[in-house]
Amino acid sequence: MAHEDCIFCKIIAGEIPAAKVYEDEHVLAFLDISQVTKGHTLVIPKEHTKNIYETPANIAQQLFARIPKIANAIKEAYRPAGLNLLNNNEPAADQSVFHLHIHLIPRYGEDDGYSANWTVHSDQYSSDDLQQIANEITQNID
Amino acid sequence: MAHEDCIFCKIIAGEIPAAKVYEDEHVLAFLDISQVTKGHTLVIPKEHTKNIYETPANIAQQLFARIPKIANAIKEAYRPAGLNLLNNNEPAADQSVFHLHIHLIPRYGEDDGYSANWTVHSDQYSSDDLQQIANEITQNID
Ligand SMILES: [Zn+2]
Ligand SMILES: [Zn+2]
Repeated sequence: MAHEDCIFCKIIAGEIPAAKVYEDEHVLAFLDISQVTKGHTLVIPKEHTKNIYETPANIAQQLFARIPKIANAIKEAYRPAGLNLLNNNEPAADQSVFHLHIHLIPRYGEDDGYSANWTVHSDQYSSDDLQQIANEITQNID
Repeated sequence: MAHEDCIFCKIIAGEIPAAKVYEDEHVLAFLDISQVTKGHTLVIPKEHTKNIYETPANIAQQLFARIPKIANAIKEAYRPAGLNLLNNNEPAADQSVFHLHIHLIPRYGEDDGYSANWTVHSDQYSSDDLQQIANEITQNID
């Protein structure tokens, strides 16, 4: 069901314009107006869900089933050197629109508009430490 | 089919150890040894596929159907402030293991080990420019 004041629900309803890339019964893809890189696309479920935590498995699978063909269309159109998929959940992870969305960001080389900073912490965890962390997560899988 | 010299196929086969978080017929989740943040997990299909471009829709959907429950288990275990999902395709997008994988990176605040740099280019594209880009992508969707 559409949520009031959700900009992506309004795009789905046609109340706000967007440059649509793909649409079917369950999924809509359209350009991110920020165009972090050329061809930067958002893929969203038509059913409103706030973020990955609140997304039922069937909506998650419908959404991701369409990603390879959209990714390949971007590849065919612009021949990027690579492609990053990103999904941000909660403001601490840079989520700013609270309707689940996957960013497809074609990459064209250094300084193309996107980069990730990773700090590797391999030296801080023993095999036993890792197994304990894995166990703590596993215990919380429904 | 398992690919020779693929480290993730060897983990699936049990030939290389890993701290496993979740496993079923189609999908395996295990900790990334780099632990960019605590609880950093990789989710992979058991069937070898190089990257998102080469992934059949049914494998993509099986993979992503499991992501919400694994994300929620990380949330329950460590109460992060947020969670980023990332998928890197091709070396230009930081892919280093050539077996499709989704990173789940729990976020704990600034300087937690991960951040993204985005440059917004909204001012460089008119509505007509965006519609033209969208059309070029749409024309390449199979
Ligand atoms: Zn919405
Ligand atoms: Zn493999």
